[in-house]
Amino acid sequence: MALKLGVIGTGAIGQDHIRRCSQTLLGSQVVALTDINLEQAAKVARDLNLTAEVYADGHALIQSPEVEAVLVTSWGPSHEAFVLAAIAAGKPVFCEKPLAVTAEGCRRIVEAEIAHGKRLVQVGFMRPYDEGYRALKSVIDSGQIGEPLMLHCAHRNPTVGENYKTDMAITDTLIHEIDVLRWLLDDDYVSVQVVFPRKSGKAFAHLKDPQIVLLETAKGTRIDVEVFVNCQYGYDIQCEVVGETGIARLPEPSQVQLRSGAKLSTAILMDWKDRFIAAYDVELQAFIDGVRAGQVGGPSAWDGYAAAVTADACIEAQNSGAIVPVSLADRPAFYV
Amino acid sequence: MALKLGVIGTGAIGQDHIRRCSQTLLGSQVVALTDINLEQAAKVARDLNLTAEVYADGHALIQSPEVEAVLVTSWGPSHEAFVLAAIAAGKPVFCEKPLAVTAEGCRRIVEAEIAHGKRLVQVGFMRPYDEGYRALKSVIDSGQIGEPLMLHCAHRNPTVGENYKTDMAITDTLIHEIDVLRWLLDDDYVSVQVVFPRKSGKAFAHLKDPQIVLLETAKGTRIDVEVFVNCQYGYDIQCEVVGETGIARLPEPSQVQLRSGAKLSTAILMDWKDRFIAAYDVELQAFIDGVRAGQVGGPSAWDGYAAAVTADACIEAQNSGAIVPVSLADRPAFYV
Amino acid sequence: MALKLGVIGTGAIGQDHIRRCSQTLLGSQVVALTDINLEQAAKVARDLNLTAEVYADGHALIQSPEVEAVLVTSWGPSHEAFVLAAIAAGKPVFCEKPLAVTAEGCRRIVEAEIAHGKRLVQVGFMRPYDEGYRALKSVIDSGQIGEPLMLHCAHRNPTVGENYKTDMAITDTLIHEIDVLRWLLDDDYVSVQVVFPRKSGKAFAHLKDPQIVLLETAKGTRIDVEVFVNCQYGYDIQCEVVGETGIARLPEPSQVQLRSGAKLSTAILMDWKDRFIAAYDVELQAFIDGVRAGQVGGPSAWDGYAAAVTADACIEAQNSGAIVPVSLADRPAFYV
Amino acid sequence: MALKLGVIGTGAIGQDHIRRCSQTLLGSQVVALTDINLEQAAKVARDLNLTAEVYADGHALIQSPEVEAVLVTSWGPSHEAFVLAAIAAGKPVFCEKPLAVTAEGCRRIVEAEIAHGKRLVQVGFMRPYDEGYRALKSVIDSGQIGEPLMLHCAHRNPTVGENYKTDMAITDTLIHEIDVLRWLLDDDYVSVQVVFPRKSGKAFAHLKDPQIVLLETAKGTRIDVEVFVNCQYGYDIQCEVVGETGIARLPEPSQVQLRSGAKLSTAILMDWKDRFIAAYDVELQAFIDGVRAGQVGGPSAWDGYAAAVTADACIEAQNSGAIVPVSLADRPAFYV
Repeated sequence: MALKLGVIGTGAIGQDHIRRCSQTLLGSQVVALTDINLEQAAKVARDLNLTAEVYADGHALIQSPEVEAVLVTSWGPSHEAFVLAAIAAGKPVFCEKPLAVTAEGCRRIVEAEIAHGKRLVQVGFMRPYDEGYRALKSVIDSGQIGEPLMLHCAHRNPTVGENYKTDMAITDTLIHEIDVLRWLLDDDYVSVQVVFPRKSGKAFAHLKDPQIVLLETAKGTRIDVEVFVNCQYGYDIQCEVVGETGIARLPEPSQVQLRSGAKLSTAILMDWKDRFIAAYDVELQAFIDGVRAGQVGGPSAWDGYAAAVTADACIEAQNSGAIVPVSLADRPAFYV
Repeated sequence: MALKLGVIGTGAIGQDHIRRCSQTLLGSQVVALTDINLEQAAKVARDLNLTAEVYADGHALIQSPEVEAVLVTSWGPSHEAFVLAAIAAGKPVFCEKPLAVTAEGCRRIVEAEIAHGKRLVQVGFMRPYDEGYRALKSVIDSGQIGEPLMLHCAHRNPTVGENYKTDMAITDTLIHEIDVLRWLLDDDYVSVQVVFPRKSGKAFAHLKDPQIVLLETAKGTRIDVEVFVNCQYGYDIQCEVVGETGIARLPEPSQVQLRSGAKLSTAILMDWKDRFIAAYDVELQAFIDGVRAGQVGGPSAWDGYAAAVTADACIEAQNSGAIVPVSLADRPAFYV
Repeated sequence: MALKLGVIGTGAIGQDHIRRCSQTLLGSQVVALTDINLEQAAKVARDLNLTAEVYADGHALIQSPEVEAVLVTSWGPSHEAFVLAAIAAGKPVFCEKPLAVTAEGCRRIVEAEIAHGKRLVQVGFMRPYDEGYRALKSVIDSGQIGEPLMLHCAHRNPTVGENYKTDMAITDTLIHEIDVLRWLLDDDYVSVQVVFPRKSGKAFAHLKDPQIVLLETAKGTRIDVEVFVNCQYGYDIQCEVVGETGIARLPEPSQVQLRSGAKLSTAILMDWKDRFIAAYDVELQAFIDGVRAGQVGGPSAWDGYAAAVTADACIEAQNSGAIVPVSLADRPAFYV
Repeated sequence: MALKLGVIGTGAIGQDHIRRCSQTLLGSQVVALTDINLEQAAKVARDLNLTAEVYADGHALIQSPEVEAVLVTSWGPSHEAFVLAAIAAGKPVFCEKPLAVTAEGCRRIVEAEIAHGKRLVQVGFMRPYDEGYRALKSVIDSGQIGEPLMLHCAHRNPTVGENYKTDMAITDTLIHEIDVLRWLLDDDYVSVQVVFPRKSGKAFAHLKDPQIVLLETAKGTRIDVEVFVNCQYGYDIQCEVVGETGIARLPEPSQVQLRSGAKLSTAILMDWKDRFIAAYDVELQAFIDGVRAGQVGGPSAWDGYAAAVTADACIEAQNSGAIVPVSLADRPAFYV
């Protein structure tokens, strides 16, 4: 039997996930929708040809006996309450990032889930589902390059809009590296530092761009991440892991090689959606399969909490220029 | 409603397709099975947990009102009869290559399908569904490299078993290039020639390996395909299209880049299944979607016929050493 | 003491060699010049600030006791007579390609040199002095890829002038591959075939471009060389050697890698001079060093003869469309 | 007339330079030698077949009217005195790094040279003569990637001996980046920081390896240099310049591409000498040509001073863990 899903929030990402569940993935059915704008929810149901009921709000949807699992794709500040409600109702919940807008909020979810006694929450970090990162992790785990000592990473976007502020380099951009590198290394952060290079003339006046974030892990691995959101040339995600005996590098997306106009070239993607589109499918399929198998996996509420604490430290480091410790609570046995 | 499929032939490829339809693809259900070995068919149904009836033979399966579409994955010489029966029953049929073991057999299928008045047959050539070839075709079709003038291709396997004979370089190996390059160029072959380089010491005594096949198309494009099935180092598919103003090359599979042991390297696949695994999914999903939409597409019976005629000419060229014309019947309007 | 050189022919290539000897290479001094146009020879002496005498003609220059070794860089049809004269005078001679405009002419030089009893002639094939080809040969000779079975090569120019005729694809372009691949494989050609792909719309009406030349060696190795002199995109020399256990490919020239404008790219050279400029230096230095050490080496008169015979067969193959044997005389012990 | 050179110090690097001047470069002649070990100097003269006089010490050599220019390739602590003596004698001097073992020593040389009124000193930093770095600089200077904002660099050696101490990562290894990146960017350093990642198990117990050095320039460009001298896999120099609109990367050395044993690979050098061998030739030829033209160029005494000051700051940063300012004196007009 298909898993009956309720979706809270029918904006862009919500619609993407609904489309995924309806047209690409196996084993689920969207039976319930809601949005702050109920007319839009109804329109999405019609446009995507769903046999789905529109609920008055997220809490009504969560309570409905028709709904077996919940996707939270609403406005960030609303996430915490919906996830807590889903846990209270004992229903599995997939929550887009952020899990909560504060570390304390994430902590409350962690505690609720522990109290519930079983994992219910998967956070929408999709990079651990990317084929390239998985191949990279498998090389590291094989021992081929020895223990990882350093990571050199970059997260580059062609441009960003005027509404993108300096702290969003952490909360909207670096947040993906914060999550995926913890997973890649199976390690935790202990300190962060941010340095601001010469500003690009292509960035809006109010935005410090690029930035370099330096992270230190519990095992002593040092990570540098260049965040450059007006790099002009492409959407480019780089990750190079320097180990004791060798170096492994995240694959470049596979592209036709061209010889043309005095250049040997391959295309670089311009749109982030093209880079991780397949990972979104794998991520959500994993949630559906996990729920059906009675075992929610993937990025956990604890991972969401750790990301939030690390992001807070990074923002403090942006402001102070100092090396800022990352003070994570002890990891509960529940999440080991 | 899911499309109800009957599968004739539950050997390796049959099982793969059944697994695909049951566990990966959307919109189909395997409801009927048969095999020359009925016990094996029953075992496959059990092992894969299918709610499917085992029929006494392919013809009974085709006639069953339970079956809406047919997958033919049986022994090559049996394909023609099953495909003709499916056409006679007016049921869409996906047939693994070869469509028939002779060009005349393919021709009979073409005529039966034309007589039926609507496309029912999709031949199991998966490469046109490979993301790399699709990207290559899109570069060609964009006009970026001008008109294609030459193709340099290679089809290499690490090793083959002792049962692999010299003509199988055409019928089992080159057959994929024969199909996909016609599609890539939207062109037909007019002549072929085969030259035998110095034999590899790694090949069995009875096998001429490698071989080079030279094909000429109606538009005058010249294609060389190196077929080398004991190349030792990997399963490697190369295709370089030389156009009037540039050259486009089939992407290498995306891999982690390693610096290790005095080498900068990426892995080369050893197993052909890893190379085209995704293409098989896309191919069969296309069949399912096509049938459900009332429009079978993809490699047609005519494409199967053209491949058979070309393969026959190549085998003649292997034996004669001469340039052998490829004499294709005129393409019926039905297939334009 | 510096080797005293006389240069016959002060056109473009002659001037290049004079500049090389005067400003880049060690151990030689240009003391004598001549040209069909004596005023130009005098001008070159002045422009390059040489203390060199201008002789009335090549024969006078060769006879001069001031001249210890001769560079022949005059018009092709004049080469044979000057080389024969140098041999008669017992003086080492470096002769730009072609050694002679007919195979018979080359043969006469071979016989004169054998009669003289010691190597005096080095032919101006520079590719065996190219670092890339040398690295490739060293990989082959190491046995890393097993016995060579096939070579896939390309010789591409962006454009050629209107005076470039179809047979020049052999005599001016392919001639470099004819020489360097014999050296690379330590093998001789036994047959050739030429096929004409669809003509590029960028070529002048009178020119068949591209062409594919298929060569077979005594050991059975099969070589395909794409000659494409209006490829637009660059000057591009490719050579891939397929061996029994692996494949080795001529290095691409080292270039800065750029990420820019949605492309990951490296530059392709547009000018052939940039590709082999270093090889010309090494080649001529080898001649100078060889003469001073009493041992002329490098491409021999026999190599010049073999290239001429092969080129003749290729031109016959262009005209006949047939597979044409390459009938080389037996190699004299003198050249083993 | 060849430039008459005197060489002070006939150890490994001294012999290399003598061989270079005698056998590879144009326009110089080694006429004088000396060494702390006079017998060794005499032996070198014999072994290399030089017509050169052995002087009692460096000062005698410098004073000799036979010597027109001096190469200082002796023990580091002796450099300053010899360079000062050469300046006092008004003779051009090429000095291997370090120019002096303290910043103050370098400063004294700078002042002596300014007092002399004309450049006499070239410091033996060879990377600005490397073809790859020159190509990279030319891309930057062309404006193709906009203003440089960040540099990501690595300097990796397979292994180092037990005598290599933590501070040598700065004085022996990073010193090359310190010089070449100033030149590449035409900029000065204003601060440095050193962080120590998890230590490699392959390094001797006393050595902190790897290290990451962060440099900030006057224009605000941020540079990270990974120094990893037990990386095992190769001698590998990386430099990636991130500009406002694109990224340029130092070329990898040109290598044969191999397909073999399930890998697509190119060799990585293991020996630093192979990486910069050509640059040493170009560097010393530039000195010879410069002296003969009356215009010494290349890395200046000021560059040697700037490198020394920066290295001192890096060592302080190794010890303190803090961000350390680089306090360079104002650049004298003489060196602009």
